[in-house]
Amino acid sequence: MNAKNEHDLSLTRRRLLGTVGAAGATGLALGGTGGALGQSAAQDEPPTALATVGSTEVAFHGKHQPGITTPLQAHGHLVAFDLASGAGRKEAAALLRRWSRTASALMAGDPAPDGHSGVALDAGPSSLTVTFGFGRGFFSRTGLTAQRPEALAPLPQFSRDALDEKRSNGDLWVQIGADDGLVAFHALRAVQRDAAGTARVRWQMNGFNRAVGATPHPKTMRNLMGQVDGTNNPKPSDSDFDKRVFVPPGGPPGWMEDGSYAVFRRIRMLLDNWDEQSLAQQEKVIGRRKSDGAPLSGGTETTAVNMEKRKADGGLAIAADAHVRVTAPDTNGGAAMLRRSFSYHDGFRDDGSPDAGLLFVAWQADPLTGFVPVQRKLDSGDALSRFIRHEASALFAVPGGAGEGEYVGQRLLEG
Amino acid sequence: MNAKNEHDLSLTRRRLLGTVGAAGATGLALGGTGGALGQSAAQDEPPTALATVGSTEVAFHGKHQPGITTPLQAHGHLVAFDLASGAGRKEAAALLRRWSRTASALMAGDPAPDGHSGVALDAGPSSLTVTFGFGRGFFSRTGLTAQRPEALAPLPQFSRDALDEKRSNGDLWVQIGADDGLVAFHALRAVQRDAAGTARVRWQMNGFNRAVGATPHPKTMRNLMGQVDGTNNPKPSDSDFDKRVFVPPGGPPGWMEDGSYAVFRRIRMLLDNWDEQSLAQQEKVIGRRKSDGAPLSGGTETTAVNMEKRKADGGLAIAADAHVRVTAPDTNGGAAMLRRSFSYHDGFRDDGSPDAGLLFVAWQADPLTGFVPVQRKLDSGDALSRFIRHEASALFAVPGGAGEGEYVGQRLLEG
Repeated sequence: MNAKNEHDLSLTRRRLLGTVGAAGATGLALGGTGGALGQSAAQDEPPTALATVGSTEVAFHGKHQPGITTPLQAHGHLVAFDLASGAGRKEAAALLRRWSRTASALMAGDPAPDGHSGVALDAGPSSLTVTFGFGRGFFSRTGLTAQRPEALAPLPQFSRDALDEKRSNGDLWVQIGADDGLVAFHALRAVQRDAAGTARVRWQMNGFNRAVGATPHPKTMRNLMGQVDGTNNPKPSDSDFDKRVFVPPGGPPGWMEDGSYAVFRRIRMLLDNWDEQSLAQQEKVIGRRKSDGAPLSGGTETTAVNMEKRKADGGLAIAADAHVRVTAPDTNGGAAMLRRSFSYHDGFRDDGSPDAGLLFVAWQADPLTGFVPVQRKLDSGDALSRFIRHEASALFAVPGGAGEGEYVGQRLLEG
Repeated sequence: MNAKNEHDLSLTRRRLLGTVGAAGATGLALGGTGGALGQSAAQDEPPTALATVGSTEVAFHGKHQPGITTPLQAHGHLVAFDLASGAGRKEAAALLRRWSRTASALMAGDPAPDGHSGVALDAGPSSLTVTFGFGRGFFSRTGLTAQRPEALAPLPQFSRDALDEKRSNGDLWVQIGADDGLVAFHALRAVQRDAAGTARVRWQMNGFNRAVGATPHPKTMRNLMGQVDGTNNPKPSDSDFDKRVFVPPGGPPGWMEDGSYAVFRRIRMLLDNWDEQSLAQQEKVIGRRKSDGAPLSGGTETTAVNMEKRKADGGLAIAADAHVRVTAPDTNGGAAMLRRSFSYHDGFRDDGSPDAGLLFVAWQADPLTGFVPVQRKLDSGDALSRFIRHEASALFAVPGGAGEGEYVGQRLLEG
């Protein structure tokens, strides 16, 4: 699944006492292969006291927007909006200004500026992050096509895609995460209220991750298939992390400096089919042991995968179509993206199967060197593809963080 | 809302280090009015260390089933099943035996007995509870109508009900709660797998509550309207708590000894309408201050409501139709139930309004002296009713807890 096995769930649940700024967050140690430094730093960190779940605050202002390198939260909302007819650049600018003010207030644990406070009173910030992005349609509707990044070209159609257009794309995108469900919901409501008259909800989805403190510390997350998920995610301590994830100084385009591109895919897992497989079959599909995430070529979770390793019978230890092989950066020209997803579960479908899987969110400096080449390989040769369905898709340009007194997207909208 | 203002959210997030047995749990101090002892005991309790979120275990075996007096968890799943055609008493007994074995294992943090383990590996029990109940239809389908409790008579139709039969009732009911989303989801999947061939999912809903540690300790919860919610819930330390919540020794019927009746209502909140009200209007509807839950008659959250108090202008401080007045036990012949609900949010409806509200669950020894008289009053005279819609309803007989070596419902199915 889109390099799913390597995805964001590696973000450890380490919490800092006090404010974690967007810049400071890049210093967080993320669990993962090869990141001996990061890994051990995380292990040295004592478990955070329970009392800080509510009081942990992420800074809204900074070089990058929050919610990209921020440790994964337990609750997430993704929501896309389309601009209302009649709403243009001026109205969009006013909306981004409102949204930025709301995000800044709520992330600090203050009431929503529109006066509709109280829903999450006395909750504390609870690691809330609110992240804003622009879809391709935004630029034509606001007369800003000249500013539209080349990187926002529509994603290619993949042969296995079964996309629902109504739950795909959108002019504007907001990603909300928090460790408390009420704080996250309150932020979603505030964002929706701010949009009234200017933009209407196109689609909205809810996700979750492990609770803070629910797993031994630090431990890579598991997805709904039970697989350890996120071992090989890029780490902020990697020398090429910024180059892979963030748009470099100057762009192009200039207004995207320090920004990133978010690929969203709603990936339903065919869990009934998956559960019918034996443990050995499941592990062969992934290329890692289910119990601890160690590659089938040997070692522990963080041991580098040995793609050439042979079993006693002469066969490859890591099958030719194993997910871990197809997604390996060195078989994709070094492509790597920061995967930071939420699991979802929307009940059961009419056929009795669970409507559940992954709200996959991947961050990269350029989708054409990040998501696209990896997904192209997965689309044709990934053993995991029999057990998943890509049901929705979107691509958003997520500008850099707002400085003090600035709003997100100001450099585009007033540039 | 069904005495919503007073509902279960008062259960404080206090966690014990180690095992909380079903019996032990009744000794938990719950925040609430009048419970000076309970309240101060809770305040004396230091915040639980984060590391215990995953390791906190609730006992499956005991006098009562878990998930009734257990402190509210952050994630909940409610699922109702109908017996498959051809499935009778024997198959139902085998299912309850499988379910009990699964619940016992997962609540202890062990893999599911059916071999489909791994999804929540290394998570720990995370305060998981799994609770089983029987709906009215169960008894006719299993030839056990002679054993059907009188108390399972269909709930009366209330004038404001707008119930969806497809999301109401059911032969069997399972309530799942856990402080970790993956642990809760895994339990739901295991319960569903156990049912294959014997029962099919009729409806299933997902809910949430505040995260452990997200609010100052101890603090009554807030619902999605932002109201402090649960101040007046019965407390296990009340002398009449057991009498109100649990079926007494001997029943009737005998097999329900130490059991309880669960009323479920899916109550959608008209949050857009609610948010249009001023703070003063919202507080008048409820009869309590939004900021701290104190009654409008004065004092603090735990001050007894003075229904006779007059304002300077001579009007009642607590309006005649205020929710807190209509739900007050002393205006309902002492009726009280233990409300232990989850909030829900299933995205947005076609009209753009949130599909969100309360998965109301109330526990009582007899619905005819618990939920029914309160709801009858609310139905005719509650100011809050303009802002809510009851969209689904069910009533289940929840037998007492299984002893060691016993399964839930054994006294009914093998009686």
